[in-house]
Amino acid sequence: MAVYTEVSDEALSDFLALYDIGEVISFKGIAEGVENSNFLVRTTRSQFILTLYEKRVKATDLPFFIGLMEHLSERGVTCPQPVRNRAGEALGELAGRPAAIVTFLDGLWIRRPNVAHCGEVGQALARMHIAGADFHLRRVNSLSLEGWPPLFHTAESRADEVTPHLRQECAAELAFLEERWPKGLPSGVIHADLFNDNVFFLGQKLSGLIDFYFACNDALAYDLAICLGAWCFEPDNAFNVSKGRAMISGYERVRRLEDAEIEALPVLARGAALRFMLTRLVDWLNVPPGAKVAPKNPLEYRDKLRFHQLVKTAADYGLTR
Amino acid sequence: MAVYTEVSDEALSDFLALYDIGEVISFKGIAEGVENSNFLVRTTRSQFILTLYEKRVKATDLPFFIGLMEHLSERGVTCPQPVRNRAGEALGELAGRPAAIVTFLDGLWIRRPNVAHCGEVGQALARMHIAGADFHLRRVNSLSLEGWPPLFHTAESRADEVTPHLRQECAAELAFLEERWPKGLPSGVIHADLFNDNVFFLGQKLSGLIDFYFACNDALAYDLAICLGAWCFEPDNAFNVSKGRAMISGYERVRRLEDAEIEALPVLARGAALRFMLTRLVDWLNVPPGAKVAPKNPLEYRDKLRFHQLVKTAADYGLTR
Repeated sequence: MAVYTEVSDEALSDFLALYDIGEVISFKGIAEGVENSNFLVRTTRSQFILTLYEKRVKATDLPFFIGLMEHLSERGVTCPQPVRNRAGEALGELAGRPAAIVTFLDGLWIRRPNVAHCGEVGQALARMHIAGADFHLRRVNSLSLEGWPPLFHTAESRADEVTPHLRQECAAELAFLEERWPKGLPSGVIHADLFNDNVFFLGQKLSGLIDFYFACNDALAYDLAICLGAWCFEPDNAFNVSKGRAMISGYERVRRLEDAEIEALPVLARGAALRFMLTRLVDWLNVPPGAKVAPKNPLEYRDKLRFHQLVKTAADYGLTR
Repeated sequence: MAVYTEVSDEALSDFLALYDIGEVISFKGIAEGVENSNFLVRTTRSQFILTLYEKRVKATDLPFFIGLMEHLSERGVTCPQPVRNRAGEALGELAGRPAAIVTFLDGLWIRRPNVAHCGEVGQALARMHIAGADFHLRRVNSLSLEGWPPLFHTAESRADEVTPHLRQECAAELAFLEERWPKGLPSGVIHADLFNDNVFFLGQKLSGLIDFYFACNDALAYDLAICLGAWCFEPDNAFNVSKGRAMISGYERVRRLEDAEIEALPVLARGAALRFMLTRLVDWLNVPPGAKVAPKNPLEYRDKLRFHQLVKTAADYGLTR
């Protein structure tokens, strides 16, 4: 999250006066996350998160994100619930940015997930997929197959500054994926960014999901592939098949994968690895002056991609049937 | 605050297990402040701030800071209260840093203080001075007269990169202050950094003081001079005498200034302005790679210094007797 936008006293109190949430007794910027400015707001009644949506989030996408959180939490997925103001609006404006207040979610994100955490995440992901099935809004995944070549072209001339031959490696993988990217898989709303800092736990139990600002419509199994990449590798970028097994079986306890999804999983995992390698590469090469968040290393996903390239079947991820 | 140090899951839970504060249900980095890493910790019982002391705070000074907060809060000054662990220790170690847990203080810091806020601050400052009178530990002010030449020498060769003649202006002011710096004024524990982000309000009422990590023993009126500089100028760096009057009379409602303090106020204010100009100048010229906090502009205090240089007597600050 971090804080990119300062909020003046008057603007804050004018904005909060639109809501029926009690008197504000504390207001603190939160240091986590990357995309938006987030503040913890305590009132005489409860705690909330106030988010100012910064440039990277398109204002036209906000009704999708806000609506999705409402939709999911109505269906029992624990996630931040948008708070509507007295006029019934869940989306307002503050300090020149679109802004929303959501409920505060208890829980801690896990810095070093274990096998049990991965199982919980698999289950929660499948529950989210099922709960999202009847959501009425749609959002194209701008960071899927069609989105990767423009990202690559932004970075390709300087990719080899990061490490030799990175440009060639990306280009070859792009060509492979353009040829082999699966079509017609079961689709629906996916989270698309369910990294460990977006999942809260209380003890070993998953307590909620946050940060739906990459959510979109895409193949459900692609979301699982993203999670395998995000949760099931060790710090040295070696895949931990026990974690993969726990995640996949957790997922299947709630939603059984179809044969086509199982078959596609290695290619989906390669795509997911390329997606995060490319966005990180672009960020790595374009750290803005005064950046408040250190860019993440794209080579982590280069290493993960190389693992996926050697995978033969989903059994290598721990699938047991 | 900002977050400079990552805390692992195990290290956090091991550390918190030493305390009798309930089960942790939320743990979030806070984006405010400059010197240390701060986290908001919610437990099943209450809320706390966990601080990891980063390099700029000397470990040997921590017993002074921690002891002072305990001392002041026992005497009715609302400030964070250090929480002792089961072994009776208020200071521990986490992620290789000295660490402490303090109580959470309700309130918001005011981005644009008004005259009433300045009056409240003056009163609270005087109350803190009186409450600190019998504190048994001492800490030298390393950022007073003897501390300024080393700061200046660190920055002087590049000072004119910031603005022409800045080096000469600093050198001349240093020479003036070395000649005229007052001695023998009433002394005691001062906050020494009571800027607006270190004072919390609930509505128009001051609700608490935080961030005692520059506190030290020095002339009490010097603390008032720092506050005049921090609170009573407008965004265009023009002094607002109504704010100054409110602050000084607020202070005197609790502790009457002696004649020597009144006479010294303009020189003390010049010293305070030079102190913040110099530390900001050093930071401005030495932004570390990956800095998470934008450096503050030293020229704000150059302008304030120029105002103080024209002041004849404390009446120019709003003193009404």
